[in-house]
Amino acid sequence: MTPETRLPVAIDAMGGDKAPAEIVAGAIRARDELGVPIVLVGRPDELGDVAGLPVIAASEVIAMDADPGKSVRTMKDSSLVRAAEAVRDGKACAMVSAGNTGATMASALLRMKRLPGVYRPAIATPIPCPGADVPTVLLDAGANAECSPEWLVQFAQMGAVYARHRYGIDQPRVGLLSIGEEPTKGSPLVKETHQLLAEGSWAEASGGTFVGNVEGRDIMSPDVDVVVTDGFTGNVVLKTLEGGMKALVKAILGAFDADDATRAAGDVLFPALLPLYAQLDPDNTGGALLLGLNGPCIISHGSSSATAVVNAVKVAVELVDADLVGAIGRTIRPEPAE
Amino acid sequence: MTPETRLPVAIDAMGGDKAPAEIVAGAIRARDELGVPIVLVGRPDELGDVAGLPVIAASEVIAMDADPGKSVRTMKDSSLVRAAEAVRDGKACAMVSAGNTGATMASALLRMKRLPGVYRPAIATPIPCPGADVPTVLLDAGANAECSPEWLVQFAQMGAVYARHRYGIDQPRVGLLSIGEEPTKGSPLVKETHQLLAEGSWAEASGGTFVGNVEGRDIMSPDVDVVVTDGFTGNVVLKTLEGGMKALVKAILGAFDADDATRAAGDVLFPALLPLYAQLDPDNTGGALLLGLNGPCIISHGSSSATAVVNAVKVAVELVDADLVGAIGRTIRPEPAE
Repeated sequence: MTPETRLPVAIDAMGGDKAPAEIVAGAIRARDELGVPIVLVGRPDELGDVAGLPVIAASEVIAMDADPGKSVRTMKDSSLVRAAEAVRDGKACAMVSAGNTGATMASALLRMKRLPGVYRPAIATPIPCPGADVPTVLLDAGANAECSPEWLVQFAQMGAVYARHRYGIDQPRVGLLSIGEEPTKGSPLVKETHQLLAEGSWAEASGGTFVGNVEGRDIMSPDVDVVVTDGFTGNVVLKTLEGGMKALVKAILGAFDADDATRAAGDVLFPALLPLYAQLDPDNTGGALLLGLNGPCIISHGSSSATAVVNAVKVAVELVDADLVGAIGRTIRPEPAE
Repeated sequence: MTPETRLPVAIDAMGGDKAPAEIVAGAIRARDELGVPIVLVGRPDELGDVAGLPVIAASEVIAMDADPGKSVRTMKDSSLVRAAEAVRDGKACAMVSAGNTGATMASALLRMKRLPGVYRPAIATPIPCPGADVPTVLLDAGANAECSPEWLVQFAQMGAVYARHRYGIDQPRVGLLSIGEEPTKGSPLVKETHQLLAEGSWAEASGGTFVGNVEGRDIMSPDVDVVVTDGFTGNVVLKTLEGGMKALVKAILGAFDADDATRAAGDVLFPALLPLYAQLDPDNTGGALLLGLNGPCIISHGSSSATAVVNAVKVAVELVDADLVGAIGRTIRPEPAE
């Protein structure tokens, strides 16, 4: 698709801790730097100078801590619901929000709907692997606190398709998160899912390959491309890593600041550490993706800066051009009864 | 208890990746440096020079990757089973093993038995918090892949007693690991457990206080003292942090090694980073503790060095002197029917 014929990316201008200022700034930069058409969604009189970007007016804003289901049901003129409708109605090719994650999911699910045959959408989050070119894809990172084995098998399929299309991995290695390598280890959910994944018929259409159970320590390693788990465990893992990395980086920076000698040494080291810092910065990952819906939905970090918005738009366009939604639809074939 | 009247600590000389050499070296150091009586358990002719330490002969060794339940049932003359029997029979005050974690648990459970009223033992693992004086206690870190809400309430009680006795925290703040602060967030297990913990009657005897749901990012923070979760989630969290920290430290050391200038700067920074490195080194935490049994059982990291063994013995003696087992027994009162 050429830039001329591309539909705009719909950006929820009201969602995120730094909305609307940083979001609007990111949207303008995305248009100017990437040449991607953008449409903002939100309250026109609160957006400031939008530098000529088109705006879909939405009078309501779903707060970051609002109840997702209730908000989406009752706030039909919210920026999130209107952004999802823009994708549904063919007015945008993808949506991006740094707002309330649950409400983003609910809006996208209710307005875009699931792809035929998809049991549940899942949040796929890239986890940076220091030293590796591509991150590990973790899913479900929080959409479904409770899962069935059959859902996890679909997550494996969707994750494999995503790793192929977004990261160009020919045959993604898919691992099942557990507490030991042996198929007999783990919760009943994991044991049943292991059997289904080991059976292998899921892999053909998705291009993935099952490498067995993996453990928490494998997530940030280059030994696995896709890690499948339920949304409770996945969300705990994601936040544990965020917290752990932040605590460690803070402690290291504290040591750098011990005295004049260490500060001078830190100045020397800083350039060498920048690539690592950039790799770990959530603003650079382009956000998580909601997989399994009939349209791309990018969920950015709540604290997203303008740079995070630019990167999210970049990912959105890449996935639209690669037709990720179509590829997932062809992989998850509808069941005969449907 | 004075050193003269203290029972020895039983050390499984055959357990761990570096057994028996490092384990025996650590046992000798523990006696010499801490003045603690030690009894080794294992194959006498494989232990080398034990520097006069007494040995309980055990002819069998449970491999690191052996099936725990089966091994413990069939290998009655294994070093793990004999070490647990030494505690049961009043010949040792505590056991320490760096061997097969599942088999260590099974040996301790089958030979020492649970304290009256305890539903299930739990593994309590200290998670270092950079910048804080004491770690966060995470439990269950892997003993029970499936749990009931009532078990988790007992874990909260045992964790609070442990934090008070081991870390001297007057009123430990106990959090329930979930995927959001709201009581309505999480799995059914978490929601039911939240209600029971919020009700508060559990707290009185244990001295703890419920601070509500916590998230993964809170574990390495100084905002909570005890984090309660099921053994599947806890084990995933523990290994995720281990892997994440290792990957990050490796990447940072790689940046230090970029060129002559960064190497020189690294030499300046190294002393300032040493305390952090020491805090994160699992050899220094003294290992995890199996709580809820009628005797102390310390589970050391599989890769334990002699230093790890010394620290594990130190923890064992502290907990014996503080009568942790008695304190847990008095907290978990037997149910009337028992």
